[in-house]
Amino acid sequence: MIADEQQIRSLIERWAEAVRCSDLAGVIKGHAHDIVMFDVPPPYKGVRGLDAYRQVWPSIFQWQAQGASFEIESMDVTVGRDLAFAYALLRCGTSEQLRRNPEMRLRLTLCLRKENDRWEVTHEHHSFPFTDVGEEEPAGHIFTAAQT
Amino acid sequence: MIADEQQIRSLIERWAEAVRCSDLAGVIKGHAHDIVMFDVPPPYKGVRGLDAYRQVWPSIFQWQAQGASFEIESMDVTVGRDLAFAYALLRCGTSEQLRRNPEMRLRLTLCLRKENDRWEVTHEHHSFPFTDVGEEEPAGHIFTAAQT
Repeated sequence: MIADEQQIRSLIERWAEAVRCSDLAGVIKGHAHDIVMFDVPPPYKGVRGLDAYRQVWPSIFQWQAQGASFEIESMDVTVGRDLAFAYALLRCGTSEQLRRNPEMRLRLTLCLRKENDRWEVTHEHHSFPFTDVGEEEPAGHIFTAAQT
Repeated sequence: MIADEQQIRSLIERWAEAVRCSDLAGVIKGHAHDIVMFDVPPPYKGVRGLDAYRQVWPSIFQWQAQGASFEIESMDVTVGRDLAFAYALLRCGTSEQLRRNPEMRLRLTLCLRKENDRWEVTHEHHSFPFTDVGEEEPAGHIFTAAQT
């Protein structure tokens, strides 16, 4: 189990490193052919399959090239016998965005299965929380997303 | 495994039904004491623990009472020996919001573990995708969230 957790942590850390390096082959290396990703932008129904997943990254790499960070701040991994999941918080933004909103974090959930003794990511959910103004936390829980 | 999948589907369907009925006890029934939820609004670091999770719901119930839906449209469940995960798309909004933006879906990821032969939710991630204008899908993948 400890070896499995270490393998999964390494997989996710290497993935984030590949994102920072605009290394597309590295980004998709640990991902299943049937990956379903809920990305920050639409499509609402998710990015389905490894080919679609691959197409997501060039525009993120472009954003990275403008100085955006993609740093894992914390990660929690739960390992089972044949499935695992992890959730993480990432400092993800340009230095100007993080200066204006120091609390801002990308929230990330990854679900994995073990195939032939190798862990692979089958589901990924990325999101930023919705706020009223983008700088302060809203007073209450309001579905501003749905209201726009 | 089939029995497990059925148990998990029922748990999630009953949870959504409890949300629609503003039934707080029903909403938290299948949840672990150490649940970590990434909710649609902040806090950025997530809602941590069952007490905090409980406090999220009254304002959502209030929104529901104004006519918002919370209907599971599709759900995909992966069951392992001791862990499971599910992702789902929900029609979640008032009829006016869904009229203006018929494609809008709440994306939901749930991670579960089996404790004493009973499945419980240990992690939940809710989000709406970010769009530029909230009605059309943006042309490219732009981290509009981070840019606000």
